[in-house]
Amino acid sequence: MAEKRPFDVLNNALNNNVLIRLKGGMELRGTMASYDVHMNLVLENTDHLENGELKRKLGTVLLRGDSIVFISPA
Amino acid sequence: MAEKRPFDVLNNALNNNVLIRLKGGMELRGTMASYDVHMNLVLENTDHLENGELKRKLGTVLLRGDSIVFISPA
Amino acid sequence: MAEKRPFDVLNNALNNNVLIRLKGGMELRGTMASYDVHMNLVLENTDHLENGELKRKLGTVLLRGDSIVFISPA
Amino acid sequence: MAEKRPFDVLNNALNNNVLIRLKGGMELRGTMASYDVHMNLVLENTDHLENGELKRKLGTVLLRGDSIVFISPA
Amino acid sequence: MAEKRPFDVLNNALNNNVLIRLKGGMELRGTMASYDVHMNLVLENTDHLENGELKRKLGTVLLRGDSIVFISPA
Amino acid sequence: MAEKRPFDVLNNALNNNVLIRLKGGMELRGTMASYDVHMNLVLENTDHLENGELKRKLGTVLLRGDSIVFISPA
Amino acid sequence: MAEKRPFDVLNNALNNNVLIRLKGGMELRGTMASYDVHMNLVLENTDHLENGELKRKLGTVLLRGDSIVFISPA
Repeated sequence: MAEKRPFDVLNNALNNNVLIRLKGGMELRGTMASYDVHMNLVLENTDHLENGELKRKLGTVLLRGDSIVFISPA
Repeated sequence: MAEKRPFDVLNNALNNNVLIRLKGGMELRGTMASYDVHMNLVLENTDHLENGELKRKLGTVLLRGDSIVFISPA
Repeated sequence: MAEKRPFDVLNNALNNNVLIRLKGGMELRGTMASYDVHMNLVLENTDHLENGELKRKLGTVLLRGDSIVFISPA
Repeated sequence: MAEKRPFDVLNNALNNNVLIRLKGGMELRGTMASYDVHMNLVLENTDHLENGELKRKLGTVLLRGDSIVFISPA
Repeated sequence: MAEKRPFDVLNNALNNNVLIRLKGGMELRGTMASYDVHMNLVLENTDHLENGELKRKLGTVLLRGDSIVFISPA
Repeated sequence: MAEKRPFDVLNNALNNNVLIRLKGGMELRGTMASYDVHMNLVLENTDHLENGELKRKLGTVLLRGDSIVFISPA
Repeated sequence: MAEKRPFDVLNNALNNNVLIRLKGGMELRGTMASYDVHMNLVLENTDHLENGELKRKLGTVLLRGDSIVFISPA
């Protein structure tokens, strides 16, 4: 079984698709390319979603960890 | 009697169902797989609830501790 | 006379009923089972109140201290 | 003349009536029983005010310092 | 010429009239009696203003520095 | 070419006109007289703007750095 | 392949066009001239966007890192 400590979830998500919920309610979906100890993340091929629908394509995105509510691997 | 210090409640909740209230009012329900000292949590089989009803299924979710208002074991 | 320094109020409230006001305006009432230095609290038999009326029963709740506005012993 | 450094104002207010303004706009009036270095305060015989009128009586209240905007001795 | 480093402005304002803008938009005007390193301030003869008009008189007020947006000497 | 590291921009702006955007959306324009390591700033001849129009004149203003979103030299 | 750790993304973006999303929802687009360890950024030829359309031109902008939600290289 894959490890399930918080940073294991980040590590297992590398190169995989994740849904990110941000403070204020914005949601992004993309491929997680990297993270650091502050939970700053790099996503690639990022979609900005609204009510689950594609609102716009953002490509590579560097997200600040302190803006994140949750990260859900696809 | 089970211990009831704050981190004992987290520890006793491992592998059990919990309701999580987030800043901004969002609520999630899932099985608590792990936590760390910042109260970052991993939930599995997570439901996003709205007014107590299922809004969508989220699977595995890594929640940042600083977004949490309360954690209530089922 | 009971001591009245801030953490004495928490200590005196152990096993007693308290009203908690949270940032965002939510209010909870329950029996205080424990606290830690961050004012993280464990409540038992917790009621979620709305305008002073019972909205729902939450049982055991672990509250993050940084979400708390005030604690009022019953 | 009484000292007027910030913590002198807290000290002079002990056992006296104070008006407290909280983040979010809530106001409380009560007798200041104690404070600590984080400006956590204990009020007694506390009134929750709305537009300067009594909304409800709260008795003893432990207020977190980080919720406070200002403290005004009566 | 008076010094104009940030804390010089506070120091020059002692015993003078200042306008204070708070997070959330509230404005106060009063005589600055003291400050500390956190920019906690004591004002005397404080007016709570609304759209520049007097809303109520508050007398002595201890303001938490983390609630302040700006301080403008009269 | 002028240096363009973040604090170089502050330093180059000394005695020049700047537009400041604050959290909550308020905008000020004035002459930057000083700054410190927290990005606390002193502005002189400060205008409070609304939709780019002068709303009121504020004279000298000490701005807390944690209220600032951006600083744009004129 | 270019490195993709969070600060590599910042470094690779130097002298390139970036889209910045700020807390509160404001968006800016400009050329990234510099950054520091707090993610304070300097943008040049900055456009303030509204719904993806140009709202106004801001020229050089020093952005505080704690206001940033994400940075997306063009």
